Amino acid sequence: MTHLLYDLGAAPGLVRQLATSMDAEIGAMELRRFPDGECYLRLDSPPADRDVVLVCTLDRPDLKTLPMLFAAATCRELGARSVGLVAPYLAYMRQDIRFRPGESVTSRHYAKMLSGELDWLVTVDPHLHRYDSLDEIYTIPTRSVAAAPALAEWLRANVANPVLIGPDEESSQWVAGVASVIDAPWLILEKHRSGDRDVQVSVPKLDLHRGRTPVLLDDIVSTGGTMAAALAHVCEQGFRAPVCMAVHGIFAGDAEAALTAAGVGRIVTCNTVEHDSNAICIAAPLVAGIRELIQPGD
Amino acid sequence: MTHLLYDLGAAPGLVRQLATSMDAEIGAMELRRFPDGECYLRLDSPPADRDVVLVCTLDRPDLKTLPMLFAAATCRELGARSVGLVAPYLAYMRQDIRFRPGESVTSRHYAKMLSGELDWLVTVDPHLHRYDSLDEIYTIPTRSVAAAPALAEWLRANVANPVLIGPDEESSQWVAGVASVIDAPWLILEKHRSGDRDVQVSVPKLDLHRGRTPVLLDDIVSTGGTMAAALAHVCEQGFRAPVCMAVHGIFAGDAEAALTAAGVGRIVTCNTVEHDSNAICIAAPLVAGIRELIQPGD
Repeated sequence: MTHLLYDLGAAPGLVRQLATSMDAEIGAMELRRFPDGECYLRLDSPPADRDVVLVCTLDRPDLKTLPMLFAAATCRELGARSVGLVAPYLAYMRQDIRFRPGESVTSRHYAKMLSGELDWLVTVDPHLHRYDSLDEIYTIPTRSVAAAPALAEWLRANVANPVLIGPDEESSQWVAGVASVIDAPWLILEKHRSGDRDVQVSVPKLDLHRGRTPVLLDDIVSTGGTMAAALAHVCEQGFRAPVCMAVHGIFAGDAEAALTAAGVGRIVTCNTVEHDSNAICIAAPLVAGIRELIQPGD
Repeated sequence: MTHLLYDLGAAPGLVRQLATSMDAEIGAMELRRFPDGECYLRLDSPPADRDVVLVCTLDRPDLKTLPMLFAAATCRELGARSVGLVAPYLAYMRQDIRFRPGESVTSRHYAKMLSGELDWLVTVDPHLHRYDSLDEIYTIPTRSVAAAPALAEWLRANVANPVLIGPDEESSQWVAGVASVIDAPWLILEKHRSGDRDVQVSVPKLDLHRGRTPVLLDDIVSTGGTMAAALAHVCEQGFRAPVCMAVHGIFAGDAEAALTAAGVGRIVTCNTVEHDSNAICIAAPLVAGIRELIQPGD
């Protein structure tokens, strides 16, 4: 029996790509909201005795999490052999410590909630800051798939002579990884943050790389504040219009407009979160991650 | 130590009323959304060694459920002695059976989710249809508080000579209960439903009650379809503008406009869900329910 995939919310085409690569079946289902805001879910392809893969990307997570957990519980109740989750973007990774007394360490509580209903989890580049791996908070087997090879491949094919720029210290892990694959120079800006949206960037030494195309690279573009500050700084120094590249393009509120105003040339993201900028498909690394966690159907 | 109440979303004034009646402390807290849609929660009043009461009404439940569960988990982590939930309106009670194969029986999965994080639950008139009590799905102690006495009291004080009308068979339990307290006549319309919003009402025998003020009574007004059909039918028969009364006023979408268009005189609801029509406070019965589940602070 082949694996059974349910599309609970992913970028267009991603579930079809996963199904094709895995030779899996896409389950027929209905998911909608009642007028009172409660959700209705029906799984038309019986999950009994199947290995089920729920695909649900978890940006704007609160409205997506309950239906996904209901789907997992329903599959189990209807006799699924296993139920895993492919979350191309994984939510609630930012609050990984109690900065002030009484704060809810939501990463930990969210991980417990998901671990209680799922057998395994695959995601792309989770925002690991103070945690070394998802194993510190998830009690189920997990795989964190790296987007760096796909980002590097895209850059090699599309940008001649790039200089990679990380907009802050946290981004250095992504930037160094991609730069080493394509053998490009890279540097990191220094950021000073005050509040969720206000970001100041300090002066770096870009002069060594005149003539190259600046590629700003980060794991997540959320409000776009970090990226916009970095963009403005690079543009001020007379470089050509930079490429902004992110694994996950959340683009909260007017983030996209902020990048445009700051002088971006092109925005490129992976299809972990649906957006017009999706240019890089992460189906292949996801399938590799899934295959490490479930055996081929028998 | 007195009980500690956290307001995670309730009608204005309700938590204050509960705190006053219970001689409890209202906890200082911050609950907000990050720009990317994740929530931030901080409990400033330490819950250690306290009996904590979370107050969170669960209409439009998906956005409220995660913060409430995070609050419960955080209280427990910070050493609360017990953590209970007062949900004046309880969500996900409608899907209580698998009508079609593959449907998610969300009432059961939601109950399991809440039972896993809470020590007890108090609510007002949950929508029990095929379940006899919450105990069939909740594994924690629960109390279902009846709004009927408060509805009856309001009618006695505000409507002379009423005839109570239930818009469908399911409403008979509420209507009969209230009518018996105030010794008023009551009857039930017959409803034929097609889809979430379309409702037809069949002809009842209202003629016996000419001269009385029609009071349409139901547990929940959601889309208002059932109420509007009943209203239109009663108004057609030449009665004075009816009072519409509900325990829970969800008023999804344009429900209120539909009632107005159908000829409603006045809409009256309990303050289980915040709405301009809130005229009946259910703090007193809620406190009675809470007291059955937790002991006075020591």
